[in-house]
Amino acid sequence: MDVIDTARGIRVLTDPTRLRILELISESPDGRALVGRLATELGLRQPTVSHHVKTLVDEGVLEREPEGRQVWYSIAPDAVERVNELLPPDAAAPASDEVLERVASDLSARFAGVFSPETVERYVRESHELLAGRAHITRHLPSLTSAFAVDRLDALAREEAPHGAEPPEVLFVCVQNAGRSQIAAAILRHLAGDRVRVRTAGSEPASAVKSTIVQALDEIGVPIGGEFPKPLTDEVVRASDVVVTMGCGDACPIYPGRRYLDWELDDPAVLPLARVREIRDDIEARVCALLSELGVNAPEKGMNAR
Amino acid sequence: MDVIDTARGIRVLTDPTRLRILELISESPDGRALVGRLATELGLRQPTVSHHVKTLVDEGVLEREPEGRQVWYSIAPDAVERVNELLPPDAAAPASDEVLERVASDLSARFAGVFSPETVERYVRESHELLAGRAHITRHLPSLTSAFAVDRLDALAREEAPHGAEPPEVLFVCVQNAGRSQIAAAILRHLAGDRVRVRTAGSEPASAVKSTIVQALDEIGVPIGGEFPKPLTDEVVRASDVVVTMGCGDACPIYPGRRYLDWELDDPAVLPLARVREIRDDIEARVCALLSELGVNAPEKGMNAR
Repeated sequence: MDVIDTARGIRVLTDPTRLRILELISESPDGRALVGRLATELGLRQPTVSHHVKTLVDEGVLEREPEGRQVWYSIAPDAVERVNELLPPDAAAPASDEVLERVASDLSARFAGVFSPETVERYVRESHELLAGRAHITRHLPSLTSAFAVDRLDALAREEAPHGAEPPEVLFVCVQNAGRSQIAAAILRHLAGDRVRVRTAGSEPASAVKSTIVQALDEIGVPIGGEFPKPLTDEVVRASDVVVTMGCGDACPIYPGRRYLDWELDDPAVLPLARVREIRDDIEARVCALLSELGVNAPEKGMNAR
Repeated sequence: MDVIDTARGIRVLTDPTRLRILELISESPDGRALVGRLATELGLRQPTVSHHVKTLVDEGVLEREPEGRQVWYSIAPDAVERVNELLPPDAAAPASDEVLERVASDLSARFAGVFSPETVERYVRESHELLAGRAHITRHLPSLTSAFAVDRLDALAREEAPHGAEPPEVLFVCVQNAGRSQIAAAILRHLAGDRVRVRTAGSEPASAVKSTIVQALDEIGVPIGGEFPKPLTDEVVRASDVVVTMGCGDACPIYPGRRYLDWELDDPAVLPLARVREIRDDIEARVCALLSELGVNAPEKGMNAR
């Protein structure tokens, strides 16, 4: 794709009226709208709206669907991705009670025989409040609530079960859970697979993992999967054999029987990619050394390996 | 965020020269550039470039870093996400040999005692070719190569190990691996957790999971994680206990001892959200019934549950 084409394509879409039209169509229950209804909602004359709609059809963004005497307009399948990226994310609407009840019911079946439905529902609701309130998550809040609740319930189950045959658990904690702890966890997961269980948390979680972090990891072939920033909770600390803090030592409660490490590293979240790469390589060498200490086969990396 | 603000902010960034400036700065090894060098690379006069750079500084997109007599410009930390979204993704550059060797070395340590380094390297290189060639993946190709290779090596290990104590494995196959199979796998994973192993593939994989699919799943609190479209390979079929095909029956090889199901469903990839939701609910009911047949506790959903 050429930069100039991108710019021209985006400019057609960035007219405020056209953006509102796309937003109204996207949000309508069946994904389509009539010009008359758009005009009413926008408080504009119908010919004005028709003109904008025609531009969007010509540009391949909208599709005409004649139906009897009416013509419906919907987002063209090829343009759906582009339009979704341009529209502002939904306001921080909390997940509805209905969705939270549904998640609680689904996870109660998943954890049947381990936790009561009441315990599962309490964790789902609390996880939702923590992500919406503490981590300011706005995109995909329902599904991240579910993922966070599962992670915490897994930790709780592990805490209550006897250790021993289970793989060791490592918890990485930094401030935003968007940089250092995500790099460490992604590299450890990549190198160790199922042989170590990894979790992450932040003392003041950001709303998303930074794109420079995702890129720096991708450059060395390390996937980050569906990870997201989340606050530090008690049960994930209790479930861990090793807790690694990075810039947030005071925020992490100390429980007996766990090993605590503190790694001094700059926060890559606000640094340019070149510095992020240096921090990534530093973390990689530390993760490899940690794996060796845990008795997990890992490549030797960092200064000593060169 | 307001639609009008978004439009204004984007318009400042969509001037073709300014986009090129941002691209040059982003791609420079240390993430910063001098106006003189930018002017040379753009073939423009220095005052012209200075003018554009000043606009970007005023808009909070670039940051000035005076150093001696020179002034360096870099992307402002707050603007990094916005800029990355506007720049066109890198051309379909294949991952370098260096990165593939690194991934092969990392995964050889992970699979030590299970597979030889030669086998691991062969799977890494083949997975890269399949994703770059068949699935047209361009974003995050190195890390997706690694994730795909791990998935295939896990399947190969499972195929060679005796079944029995392991959880049952289900493979969902559709055409693009961007809609139906991703919905089915995400819901099954959400409901069953570790009690069932799930994989997906497509006979003609798309380049990414559609955003309408991610949204329809999010609405019912089902995370999709780091899933991505990938072609159908032999070892994932062999590793499965149940293979569910959706619109791609002929493409899937038949091996004895596996159970084959064919689910007739419209392809949601090109449908509006309202229709995607109907297909999602249909798939959910089928997944719950399948889990019950596998002896895995699952909520009852669909027509009969209402």
